[in-house]
Amino acid sequence: MKKLIDFYELTMAYTDFKCGKRDEYCCFDVYFRKNLDNGGYNISGGLSEIIDFVENFHFDKKDIEYLRNANMFDEDFLQYLLNFKFSGDIYAVEDGTAVFAGEPIITVRANAIEAQLLETDILNRFNHATMITTKTSRIVTQAQGRAVMEFGARRAHGADAASIGAKYAYIGGAVGTSCYQTGFDYNVPLLGTMAHSHIMKYDDEYQAFLNYAKCYPNNCILLIDTIDTLRSGLVNAIKVAKNYLEPNGYRLKGIRLDSGDLAYLSKRAREILDKNGMNDCKITVSNSLDEYLIKDLLEQDAPIDSFGVGENLITSKSCPVFNGVYKLVAVEENGEIIPRIKISENVEKITNPSYKKVYRFYDRNTHYALGDLVALADEIIPKDEIILTDEKDTWKQTKLQNYYVKELQKLIFKNGELVYKQPTIEEIKNKVQRELGTLWEEIKRLNNPHKYYVDLSDNLRELKNKMLNEKNKKIFTE
Amino acid sequence: MKKLIDFYELTMAYTDFKCGKRDEYCCFDVYFRKNLDNGGYNISGGLSEIIDFVENFHFDKKDIEYLRNANMFDEDFLQYLLNFKFSGDIYAVEDGTAVFAGEPIITVRANAIEAQLLETDILNRFNHATMITTKTSRIVTQAQGRAVMEFGARRAHGADAASIGAKYAYIGGAVGTSCYQTGFDYNVPLLGTMAHSHIMKYDDEYQAFLNYAKCYPNNCILLIDTIDTLRSGLVNAIKVAKNYLEPNGYRLKGIRLDSGDLAYLSKRAREILDKNGMNDCKITVSNSLDEYLIKDLLEQDAPIDSFGVGENLITSKSCPVFNGVYKLVAVEENGEIIPRIKISENVEKITNPSYKKVYRFYDRNTHYALGDLVALADEIIPKDEIILTDEKDTWKQTKLQNYYVKELQKLIFKNGELVYKQPTIEEIKNKVQRELGTLWEEIKRLNNPHKYYVDLSDNLRELKNKMLNEKNKKIFTE
Repeated sequence: MKKLIDFYELTMAYTDFKCGKRDEYCCFDVYFRKNLDNGGYNISGGLSEIIDFVENFHFDKKDIEYLRNANMFDEDFLQYLLNFKFSGDIYAVEDGTAVFAGEPIITVRANAIEAQLLETDILNRFNHATMITTKTSRIVTQAQGRAVMEFGARRAHGADAASIGAKYAYIGGAVGTSCYQTGFDYNVPLLGTMAHSHIMKYDDEYQAFLNYAKCYPNNCILLIDTIDTLRSGLVNAIKVAKNYLEPNGYRLKGIRLDSGDLAYLSKRAREILDKNGMNDCKITVSNSLDEYLIKDLLEQDAPIDSFGVGENLITSKSCPVFNGVYKLVAVEENGEIIPRIKISENVEKITNPSYKKVYRFYDRNTHYALGDLVALADEIIPKDEIILTDEKDTWKQTKLQNYYVKELQKLIFKNGELVYKQPTIEEIKNKVQRELGTLWEEIKRLNNPHKYYVDLSDNLRELKNKMLNEKNKKIFTE
Repeated sequence: MKKLIDFYELTMAYTDFKCGKRDEYCCFDVYFRKNLDNGGYNISGGLSEIIDFVENFHFDKKDIEYLRNANMFDEDFLQYLLNFKFSGDIYAVEDGTAVFAGEPIITVRANAIEAQLLETDILNRFNHATMITTKTSRIVTQAQGRAVMEFGARRAHGADAASIGAKYAYIGGAVGTSCYQTGFDYNVPLLGTMAHSHIMKYDDEYQAFLNYAKCYPNNCILLIDTIDTLRSGLVNAIKVAKNYLEPNGYRLKGIRLDSGDLAYLSKRAREILDKNGMNDCKITVSNSLDEYLIKDLLEQDAPIDSFGVGENLITSKSCPVFNGVYKLVAVEENGEIIPRIKISENVEKITNPSYKKVYRFYDRNTHYALGDLVALADEIIPKDEIILTDEKDTWKQTKLQNYYVKELQKLIFKNGELVYKQPTIEEIKNKVQRELGTLWEEIKRLNNPHKYYVDLSDNLRELKNKMLNEKNKKIFTE
């Protein structure tokens, strides 16, 4: 198994080891600073890969030999690494949960070295999976109930990006994937039509279609743009339906368009198919689609039944960096929790200190999510009425009533032991749909969506401001 | 080993298997349609991963069982897959070569099924590695001799994207990476400084720096923006140098800035360091850098010695999709080569038919590359004088003289056997620099670079036009 560690984690761990901090407990939060694509929401992912990583994370003899050759660590430390096993606690929001900028998604509490060494792998898995799940959800939302198929393996950033990416595309709402490895690893439905090469192998497009139809009479979707979409491909597809499929009791399941103007061509193709009594023949389109293009095509009433989406989904092209970070929020000294804060010239890089919990408030009648509250871990959340206050513009307040509350993070690892029962992929996929059902349409709007409330509790906001002011005081007086 | 196959490759292979095409030889080209980032050049990568894949590509019993359950293939075909081993020929441009849109980079000649099943994995590896190598080369070019370090693992799209990506970043010109796995797998130099968390663990920034300096007195680079860059971090870094490092015979190696205005802060920091006799203390910066920002910082005379580049490199954020495609260019029937062409409503999707070779012409005196010619495989290239003709604007011609010629593709697999001796990573890294040395500066310009000539031979252009016209004729008369 590959393990992602940034080298500085090892040099910092060594410093902790040598300077008496190895047994000091630390608490790190994973959170992100901006919603994907400036959208209104994100769907979290990556927890099952993180669990795999944490359970299997170790250094074997080859690692130790390699590190010994770096001449930067002593033998005591190398021995410590050889015996390394995560023994801390991890809390995390479950995969498939709607999450928002600024709230802790994963919280790691462990000794300084263990907590530090998990940073990069956790971030990599979380960032990648959350990005793909969210991107797919955005695309599927714009498809308005039409099927979205994931076709991006060839443009993904390596094998994991393709196969794990396709898993999260399925979770995020795609009906299946073309990626064999994802089908094999996760039992995600495999889908596909045909490539231009299949037709180009033949002198004659009709013969290429006919041979395919003979192999897959029940499930025949023909790619019709290899020579000329309307004047050759569609003509030959209909000929195959009439000459072979229909006389043998089958129907042509669909055609696929992969170039040209998809709105124009789908309308003309639909007309011609319908005139030939083939109303049940579906039209699938592909060609560098994303949520924006799908929205435009459907606004122009393109009669498209399903979308094959490749590169723009699997790389999240319009926003290929998801910005989750892993930040120290507290240390423990002799059992006492000491909150920590990161100050920055870039205000958005300032962290929220201390052990925290995230609560989501739901309307008792509509079950819509009303807002999230990030509070100190020991705060008690009132059951009947609460006022949410904007962190910066504190005059912006919302009074919530008639709600029920859920705590978002679950305990995943306790003293290094996995205590969380992992849901199946189908269960996570279903959860995504339930979660989307709790979000107002205004939050799911493609452009300039309504901003979902993520507020800090009064106690947390006050602690944060107090710590920021203290740092200022210290700098000015030194 | 993961294998990337799009499901349609299996259904097409099955059709070939059932319809008498399994032994028919096909030839596919990998090429791309647009240079990365609208740049002037690209550097090819991914060949060693492709070689690994081709050598190990097989279906084991679990694959067969899985495919049997799909109920789409008969037992003969499943048996065929169980015995599958690539037995064809592969030609490819070596990793680290400057390559341009429109020329064949990899050519696969094999029976229909074998050639088809390699498509997705080859494209995935080629697209990812070429994208990262090229992106890094663009960034390193703008850094004008200053070191560029790859720091992106946490934002890469999964573990392969991080670890293989960092390998190609090193090949493309980075001096090393923070990614442990890449160091371990490929012996790429590991680099890093420290995280904010290291400082935040302490009540006092000075103590945090001092402990780190004690562990790494020879190699101490301090991150100075956790509290306040100039008023706290820099002050404490200098204190560590004066109180601990210098009295013990060491020097502070560097400081790192990770937020705020990097031009302003680096200038102020440089001034203060110099005033303190620390002219040898290097300034490293990071924070969402890319080639555009690095160019701007250096134009403003920011006294920066090295750049840590993360997410914008490892995801190629400004252009995260590299568009390599895999297209059938010929079939063989009874030993005869029959060229094939893909026509498209989107003109850029039309392919160049038949078996081809790519030649690069170099000036005998300057050794600059003068242009590339894509010719039919059996053409003889004149040694003394040749006229290159633009494919569309055929009046645009360039007469080349006083040149020498290199053929770009090498034979990699012959009848399924690897016949290519793979260079080391260091050799490929050196090749990249040599290749860049053959390109005019105008081609390496960041914005609106000069377009390098990639022309078709007269014979190839005539064949292509003839095939396009024949298709038209066929459509109009039917």
